[in-house]
Amino acid sequence: MVNGQCSIIKVGGKIVEEPESLQRLLDDFVAIKGPKVLVHGGGRSATKIAAQLGIESQMVNGRRITDADMLRVVTMVYGGLVNKNIVAGLQARGVNAVGLTGADMNVILSDKRPVKDIDYGFVGDVKQVDGAQLANLLQAGIVPVMAPLTHDGRGNLLNTNADTIAAETAKGLAPYFDVTLIYCFEKKGVLRDEADDDSVIPTITPQQFKELVEQGVVQGGMIPKLENAFQAIDAGVKQVVITAANAIDGQQGTLICNPPILNCKQ
Amino acid sequence: MVNGQCSIIKVGGKIVEEPESLQRLLDDFVAIKGPKVLVHGGGRSATKIAAQLGIESQMVNGRRITDADMLRVVTMVYGGLVNKNIVAGLQARGVNAVGLTGADMNVILSDKRPVKDIDYGFVGDVKQVDGAQLANLLQAGIVPVMAPLTHDGRGNLLNTNADTIAAETAKGLAPYFDVTLIYCFEKKGVLRDEADDDSVIPTITPQQFKELVEQGVVQGGMIPKLENAFQAIDAGVKQVVITAANAIDGQQGTLICNPPILNCKQ
Repeated sequence: MVNGQCSIIKVGGKIVEEPESLQRLLDDFVAIKGPKVLVHGGGRSATKIAAQLGIESQMVNGRRITDADMLRVVTMVYGGLVNKNIVAGLQARGVNAVGLTGADMNVILSDKRPVKDIDYGFVGDVKQVDGAQLANLLQAGIVPVMAPLTHDGRGNLLNTNADTIAAETAKGLAPYFDVTLIYCFEKKGVLRDEADDDSVIPTITPQQFKELVEQGVVQGGMIPKLENAFQAIDAGVKQVVITAANAIDGQQGTLICNPPILNCKQ
Repeated sequence: MVNGQCSIIKVGGKIVEEPESLQRLLDDFVAIKGPKVLVHGGGRSATKIAAQLGIESQMVNGRRITDADMLRVVTMVYGGLVNKNIVAGLQARGVNAVGLTGADMNVILSDKRPVKDIDYGFVGDVKQVDGAQLANLLQAGIVPVMAPLTHDGRGNLLNTNADTIAAETAKGLAPYFDVTLIYCFEKKGVLRDEADDDSVIPTITPQQFKELVEQGVVQGGMIPKLENAFQAIDAGVKQVVITAANAIDGQQGTLICNPPILNCKQ
């Protein structure tokens, strides 16, 4: 049962945390046609409010260690402050948004990440997305705004990477829609030369990704982002776009699509 | 179109903010049959976290003054911390809860309270409840968990009294269900003698309410609570029960019902 296009747009914390860029983002989001989902971060605000509360933010490999105190902070900041301000901002623009964590309507169930070398604390690895429930909302004209929090089904909230939430949501909706997953960040796309903002690689195949990693062109946080993208494509998502926050319509940036041909942009 | 019974249960901050009493409340809430809504407070946590952030809580006549900083705190605490922990706790008990502020799905629209003698700041007076939207959720087996926050439709969240949220939600659902509104608080009901916990007045008519206020038997925060109750009855709510947090099934306490006969308990 495929009901046309659906866009899943993930925006980083920085964009949603500054009032001016948030307003612009919301204007751009409203202009996107058809069913859509907004997935947001909020790490900078969480770090700031944690510091004001005397709670130290511990990061390992760019990932936050989430102890019980930090879980309270991210629940407040992601689930409350950031999420509800986006929802109110969309309602003001005539978009019938609903803010969701994974616990709400049980849309995303996770497992607490097992402790191997590092104990990340109350961090979730996504186990199951209720795509049918999300599709019902979308078909009723409701726009989910998803905070990077999930739950374990035993009463515990879990801090969960927003890129992963976006990819898993896209996969969960793939049986119901032709899904485009759009990752917005500070750059215009995947860059061939980090120093040249205009060196955007237009498309990447799995084989090219492997080569780009080996060559050191793709590195750091871009590696898990692209891994998420390829997994989403493998799971039935039509296309993934990695682009800038001022290009959330997905018409620019780096395109990864299914089938992985050189230029699959329509 | 009336679809049977529906219970709206309002619980104060104290009950939901202490882990032990919260667990007991959630167990009791799960046992309530039929469509149901949970409305919660969270003032004590808000005051505590505000203090930790160096923000002073200003109260006038028991009502919080909500400046921009305090609005951020209550958005975090009510919309995030308290609400999402309740939702996760209900999911763990097999209840398909969704946490909502008034902004989510536009369920409660408010006006910022006009400044008369006192400027309450970002505080909302409820203008409109989307009962049809809430009824749709309930009929789909979803249980709304409502935080005491609304929005003005222009992008602003507004701090809103939880008793009012409960009464307005009950009124909004009255065209769709036979609604029972249950207010839970520290006492067993409306007491004839403040010093005697067992002096619960079983039922109160509007005429008796007037007399009880004149006699000084009913005073303080109980006056607006009862005013909310009578307004709800006038607007089609079947019955209102004022009772203790360990009696959320509404079988004990003070009953106000429609029509206002002496003992309308079924």
